[in-house]
Amino acid sequence: MSEYGPRLVVPIDLKKKPREQKHRLHNRWHPEIPPVAEVKAGEVFRVEMMDFSGGGITSNYSAEDIKFADQSIVHYLSGPIKVVDEKGVPAKPGDLLAVEICNLGPLPGDEWGYTATFDRENGGGFLTDHFPCATKAIWYFEGIYAYSPHIPGVRFPGLTHPGIIGTAPSMELLKIWNERERELEANGLQSLKLCEVLHSRPLANLPSTKGCLLGQIQEGTPEWEKIAEEAARTIPGRENGGNCDIKNLSRGSKIYLPVFVDGANLSTGDMHFSQGDGEVSFCGAIEMSGFLELKCEIIRGGMKEYLTPMGPTSLHVNPIFEIGPVEPRFSEWLVFEGISVDESGKQHYLDASVAYKRAVLNAIDYLSKFGYSKEQMYLLLSCCPCEGRISGIVDSPNAVATLAIPTAIFDQDIRPKTRIVPVGPRLVRNPDVLKCTYDGNLPTTKNPGATT
Amino acid sequence: MSEYGPRLVVPIDLKKKPREQKHRLHNRWHPEIPPVAEVKAGEVFRVEMMDFSGGGITSNYSAEDIKFADQSIVHYLSGPIKVVDEKGVPAKPGDLLAVEICNLGPLPGDEWGYTATFDRENGGGFLTDHFPCATKAIWYFEGIYAYSPHIPGVRFPGLTHPGIIGTAPSMELLKIWNERERELEANGLQSLKLCEVLHSRPLANLPSTKGCLLGQIQEGTPEWEKIAEEAARTIPGRENGGNCDIKNLSRGSKIYLPVFVDGANLSTGDMHFSQGDGEVSFCGAIEMSGFLELKCEIIRGGMKEYLTPMGPTSLHVNPIFEIGPVEPRFSEWLVFEGISVDESGKQHYLDASVAYKRAVLNAIDYLSKFGYSKEQMYLLLSCCPCEGRISGIVDSPNAVATLAIPTAIFDQDIRPKTRIVPVGPRLVRNPDVLKCTYDGNLPTTKNPGATT
Amino acid sequence: MSEYGPRLVVPIDLKKKPREQKHRLHNRWHPEIPPVAEVKAGEVFRVEMMDFSGGGITSNYSAEDIKFADQSIVHYLSGPIKVVDEKGVPAKPGDLLAVEICNLGPLPGDEWGYTATFDRENGGGFLTDHFPCATKAIWYFEGIYAYSPHIPGVRFPGLTHPGIIGTAPSMELLKIWNERERELEANGLQSLKLCEVLHSRPLANLPSTKGCLLGQIQEGTPEWEKIAEEAARTIPGRENGGNCDIKNLSRGSKIYLPVFVDGANLSTGDMHFSQGDGEVSFCGAIEMSGFLELKCEIIRGGMKEYLTPMGPTSLHVNPIFEIGPVEPRFSEWLVFEGISVDESGKQHYLDASVAYKRAVLNAIDYLSKFGYSKEQMYLLLSCCPCEGRISGIVDSPNAVATLAIPTAIFDQDIRPKTRIVPVGPRLVRNPDVLKCTYDGNLPTTKNPGATT
Amino acid sequence: MSEYGPRLVVPIDLKKKPREQKHRLHNRWHPEIPPVAEVKAGEVFRVEMMDFSGGGITSNYSAEDIKFADQSIVHYLSGPIKVVDEKGVPAKPGDLLAVEICNLGPLPGDEWGYTATFDRENGGGFLTDHFPCATKAIWYFEGIYAYSPHIPGVRFPGLTHPGIIGTAPSMELLKIWNERERELEANGLQSLKLCEVLHSRPLANLPSTKGCLLGQIQEGTPEWEKIAEEAARTIPGRENGGNCDIKNLSRGSKIYLPVFVDGANLSTGDMHFSQGDGEVSFCGAIEMSGFLELKCEIIRGGMKEYLTPMGPTSLHVNPIFEIGPVEPRFSEWLVFEGISVDESGKQHYLDASVAYKRAVLNAIDYLSKFGYSKEQMYLLLSCCPCEGRISGIVDSPNAVATLAIPTAIFDQDIRPKTRIVPVGPRLVRNPDVLKCTYDGNLPTTKNPGATT
Repeated sequence: MSEYGPRLVVPIDLKKKPREQKHRLHNRWHPEIPPVAEVKAGEVFRVEMMDFSGGGITSNYSAEDIKFADQSIVHYLSGPIKVVDEKGVPAKPGDLLAVEICNLGPLPGDEWGYTATFDRENGGGFLTDHFPCATKAIWYFEGIYAYSPHIPGVRFPGLTHPGIIGTAPSMELLKIWNERERELEANGLQSLKLCEVLHSRPLANLPSTKGCLLGQIQEGTPEWEKIAEEAARTIPGRENGGNCDIKNLSRGSKIYLPVFVDGANLSTGDMHFSQGDGEVSFCGAIEMSGFLELKCEIIRGGMKEYLTPMGPTSLHVNPIFEIGPVEPRFSEWLVFEGISVDESGKQHYLDASVAYKRAVLNAIDYLSKFGYSKEQMYLLLSCCPCEGRISGIVDSPNAVATLAIPTAIFDQDIRPKTRIVPVGPRLVRNPDVLKCTYDGNLPTTKNPGATT
Repeated sequence: MSEYGPRLVVPIDLKKKPREQKHRLHNRWHPEIPPVAEVKAGEVFRVEMMDFSGGGITSNYSAEDIKFADQSIVHYLSGPIKVVDEKGVPAKPGDLLAVEICNLGPLPGDEWGYTATFDRENGGGFLTDHFPCATKAIWYFEGIYAYSPHIPGVRFPGLTHPGIIGTAPSMELLKIWNERERELEANGLQSLKLCEVLHSRPLANLPSTKGCLLGQIQEGTPEWEKIAEEAARTIPGRENGGNCDIKNLSRGSKIYLPVFVDGANLSTGDMHFSQGDGEVSFCGAIEMSGFLELKCEIIRGGMKEYLTPMGPTSLHVNPIFEIGPVEPRFSEWLVFEGISVDESGKQHYLDASVAYKRAVLNAIDYLSKFGYSKEQMYLLLSCCPCEGRISGIVDSPNAVATLAIPTAIFDQDIRPKTRIVPVGPRLVRNPDVLKCTYDGNLPTTKNPGATT
Repeated sequence: MSEYGPRLVVPIDLKKKPREQKHRLHNRWHPEIPPVAEVKAGEVFRVEMMDFSGGGITSNYSAEDIKFADQSIVHYLSGPIKVVDEKGVPAKPGDLLAVEICNLGPLPGDEWGYTATFDRENGGGFLTDHFPCATKAIWYFEGIYAYSPHIPGVRFPGLTHPGIIGTAPSMELLKIWNERERELEANGLQSLKLCEVLHSRPLANLPSTKGCLLGQIQEGTPEWEKIAEEAARTIPGRENGGNCDIKNLSRGSKIYLPVFVDGANLSTGDMHFSQGDGEVSFCGAIEMSGFLELKCEIIRGGMKEYLTPMGPTSLHVNPIFEIGPVEPRFSEWLVFEGISVDESGKQHYLDASVAYKRAVLNAIDYLSKFGYSKEQMYLLLSCCPCEGRISGIVDSPNAVATLAIPTAIFDQDIRPKTRIVPVGPRLVRNPDVLKCTYDGNLPTTKNPGATT
Repeated sequence: MSEYGPRLVVPIDLKKKPREQKHRLHNRWHPEIPPVAEVKAGEVFRVEMMDFSGGGITSNYSAEDIKFADQSIVHYLSGPIKVVDEKGVPAKPGDLLAVEICNLGPLPGDEWGYTATFDRENGGGFLTDHFPCATKAIWYFEGIYAYSPHIPGVRFPGLTHPGIIGTAPSMELLKIWNERERELEANGLQSLKLCEVLHSRPLANLPSTKGCLLGQIQEGTPEWEKIAEEAARTIPGRENGGNCDIKNLSRGSKIYLPVFVDGANLSTGDMHFSQGDGEVSFCGAIEMSGFLELKCEIIRGGMKEYLTPMGPTSLHVNPIFEIGPVEPRFSEWLVFEGISVDESGKQHYLDASVAYKRAVLNAIDYLSKFGYSKEQMYLLLSCCPCEGRISGIVDSPNAVATLAIPTAIFDQDIRPKTRIVPVGPRLVRNPDVLKCTYDGNLPTTKNPGATT
């Protein structure tokens, strides 16, 4: 009965570790990581993947695994996959690879996920100066829906997507990445004043042999050493796509990725059952293992035809994509606004990151009035299908960002009431997120205006 | 037959100037600008407004009025309107004012608008370093649709909204605004490195008597002098709402505004037939005159009940709102991505403004391949119902922003084609935007990777 | 300031009667009713209209005007409007007339409407055997929203549309109508067994001079007598469009009407602020006066190009249309099912009308459990934006019809609760619809299974 | 790794026949068919099912299996499933069973389906008098999408749903069914004039031992004989739900089924990858095997609480349901209208079935102008996500029905063009549906107005 349906090209055995998989995983970008499979244009194929931590983070009701998570292994990817056309000719540098996500979901039997925020000393998150502790919530899936015992009263359908999908960089592109990120890490704290408001560190994650897994390339060989010292970390989204964390790359979407190496060498990982725009708590989607059913087409010469480089070289491009037709449908949204004035009252100049930080803080505080802890809402706004918008970016000096939350995900009416409703005392929600202590000594950001 | 329908509380005569209107307009925020009308909670009332320039910018097919626009008069507002409850008791500081937008639209007989970008020396815009010239496009309305002879092949339904709606600040709040913006204008160029990427100047527009109109307060009186020197400019969105330029504040939406003075003193203006997220070309919506039908309710003590101050005082709050149910409905979107690497290839740290700039540049270049000039696309992306998203804000060092464009607004299929379609030569679109020369000598940003 | 905006071609003065209007109205279909205005293809023009009763039904809080409504005057239409192309050549028989509804709404100052059901002896309605009394509810408009003091707890945005829009029939088509409807009225009770379930009478409304208004043609002239005796009543939708009562012919929709006479002779009327699929209570939309902003295009030879006759002549065609982009958006629907078994338990064969009657009855009974009278819900389901679907039409012997109701129009949660919610006694809603006695002696349909 | 995810309670082995399955299937409704599994309220469980024909219809490129299909075995169902509450107490008659469809889809490895229309002598379909031949199209699935080599140029996402879901009837309800359907079959042709327009025969399918499969009850036993002679066929939807063929019973929907026997005895089958409203070609969905992930809750006493009987007994009820949040999203629809005048030109009285027949015929003819055969479009409108509406049901004598087709499912623009577009000759689509001859001698309906 397996004559129909997608061909499985990257299987995962969840009882095994990333390096024990039939097609060993990789957690770096490098042109010389060899493909583990080959697919034809037009063919529907199936790729399975572990969660980004390769099983390191578990469904235990404890945040200890988050607090002490090994950031050097982030993220375990499936692939690379070589793509050839109907005649067997590989995709070439300069082509566009159109990748359609025909279907995706959790791996059968593994229908659960987690949302977390790292300890401030170990990765942090968008609001780490407010929430320095490691926290975790476990989510269980009921088909299209997720619910968490740690954030009761909330249930929503997943806008499931791979956090990471990308092609392999060429050596030239890899060098560009390493140089610009090294420059930032070396000099950024002096030159970039935004750092005063966003407190995640380090500024950039440079190549490191620690934790490095390079697929079929054996550890300890000279080849491995060379590649491990050059290969880019997978944390940021870049010209090749990568960890763009765009929540709308879901069922039916189509991604046009630039091709930098022969065969394109497509890799994917970091499956999210659901994520809010921004993925604010960093480990902030509902992280899970999963599968993708993909179909690729090659647009010969498509980079020149459709993309314009925006930078010093012809490699400074970005992917484009089309949104699929089956996103969850919400009609009512409560929207929070933020402007580029920080918590100390300081005015910033058209800074959308500061404005969005304030919008998220506003939303967390608002929702905490409905029986939730702020930590619960921080995790929820990271993983529920909320939308973060750049509403105004020209009205000096304030950027205006908005965060829109679908009201239907709550089991209570969270809108402001224009008339006092005698509904009795607010619901006290005893469960809370799983939480560790923060043992560091960095100061947290005080919100001087808050009473609690 | 006028026993039904909203009561007209602020009429506009389009043959008169802002200072000649029955209820003289105002273009500053100050607690002492007296109300011109009073409305009751629950009553539906009608407010009319001039376009933001008070008729200064015309439907002439020339961009000269844009190039030499007087920025000191921006924006002419209708109001203030005093709001009282059913018993006649005014809204009080600490209340929330719930304002429902029951309906809105162009003024009958004046169904046209304009989109423009200012000269770099006179206001600029988000991409002023790329597009330093003043440009203008005229739009005509056919009911819910707008079309422009200057950007042919495009037609879309308006998501009409007031660019500005807000309550009057208290003196205490006004002082906070003036201090923080003065500090920015004085020291920002030294302390804020983002300025290297965003080139609109000045950093902030401080109070000025030039161009100041204060409603019923007569020019030249000592009262006028005092207020004019204190009153805040209307350009940025702030704690009172104001020029938040949120495109979703359309039919059926509900805005919860904090109240800072007795009666709330609601003002509104800067009507937009349509706007894209970010309003990137600055004069970037389809600017028009118009009317609003509003209904207010007072939530006594609502600021404390629903808002949490995020800053040094209890006044550091932001409005929240609900989206209305009749927004234009699109099912297919083409999405452009940007990361926080600027045009020179320099890496920025989680900077959503830089990422959005790159996403917009990517989109302009892409669309210009379909027979358009880049100036046409810059104006189009400012005013069509496109969505700007903060997709990733935690994956150091790259913020990822996305710009989603509804494909149905074009009369051609703008998606990448996976197969070569023999449709003949690309359409050459002879009309272009109205354009002036740039006579300044600031350098433009070169995109080193572009071939044209 | 009136150089922009649509040209007003049919003005209405609401203080005057239909025969006193500048362009006298008409309430019959006939090729010889002369046009009152001429418009060019591509031009946006404005047509105003009275409510279908020409002001006969008022906003008084009494249903007497409904009980004794004069059915012979139904419906007063604006027009006919002659359509010519850019060169002045009229539309010709065999063309298609593409009519775009650019905008529409209530007439300013007249923002109210009514929903009613006629007395069983005077028009009835879909459920007249259950609800034989005349009833009425008055609705007031707050911009896009309508609410009624007679059906409290409900408020919804209007999907506003003209109940009637059509072209004039040719004499040949008119004869076809009159013959087939005369045959039905004469012999239908004997030959059509569905009549046992649907109780509105008469079966068809044949031409009659009583109540007839023919625009500019003077009453009492021989021409008037001839036309009045031939002209078709406006009640049913037919090949020319006419009273099709399709709720989706709203803002932005486009209707392709066949042309049967020179100039097309477009007429329109019977504006509805909102209507549910089926308009079940007959006078069942929110009836109002209003305006349309239209744009026409002529597709030469379009009838043959796009329509296929489905009947004995080439005139047996039907219009087609496209839906507009700004319909109210609802995400949650409660759906009621009906099968083709009637209230007596009798099985019918794939009869969608019987199935839909049962679905509507099921919905009325269900909603009446939430504090409403059944008469309130009968009127509500006639006029709110509910959707009536033919779900199954092949599973002998049962047709399955469904009625989907957007839950957001209610101020309470009307979904079944899977857990008992201690919300106290159900809300008693003291107001009810306006109601008359039924003085006839036809038996009502008993629902043997109902306890009340 | 199977500690998470739904419990599989009814497995299917596609290599085996319905009577060879571990839990033998059944194809009749009867209270005495014993449950094959038991589930708890709140538990998510998985039910697998064969296609309705139990594998009788294959993926062969021939319509012979359709022409000679055995109608006596329709439809093979999985179950019954007994539902108990958290304490183990079964659902009771008078309760409501809330069934949430958490997820559903094709069985892995079996991602294909078929759409067909039966021969007029063997089941027919809604338009069997126009299309008497057996035809078939095979569809293949690419994740959420389906495409067919027999209807090229069309691809759409599935709104997947079980055609049949229902509870077991009590003996009392079963008798009601059998009596009313026997009466129809015996006397319908004499008493029901609609039969002249709808030509599927027989009028009703009465109980028959032929082809009967009763789950665990062994053929040939006295128990089997008794039940087989009483058990209702599964073809029509009825009070227990059953074959309601409602396309919106998809992911995330919730169905409230009345309970007639202890344990509810839920059965389901006839999975559809996609279906249009009406399922007009009868075997008209994309028929497939599949799985459901379900969650049940019991509302004690819910029948009395929420349903009102509409007929002679308290059993004359119908299910209600809520629509799920992830239906495919389309923004542009082309809509065809039909009125209750049949192909011969005869006027019918408010007959929605006749009006819908005409709307479907209109749509088929229209679409056939774009390079398709009418048989292709008949199958397409049966299985694509088109919507069939009862638009007007009160405007005597014409019912108005509409059929709305999402334009995005076609790879060409199927809207009427207001200007002649020089696109060259219309595409000739050589492939067609698989087709058999019609060997009967019943007359087909001629459309006198058609030229082809």
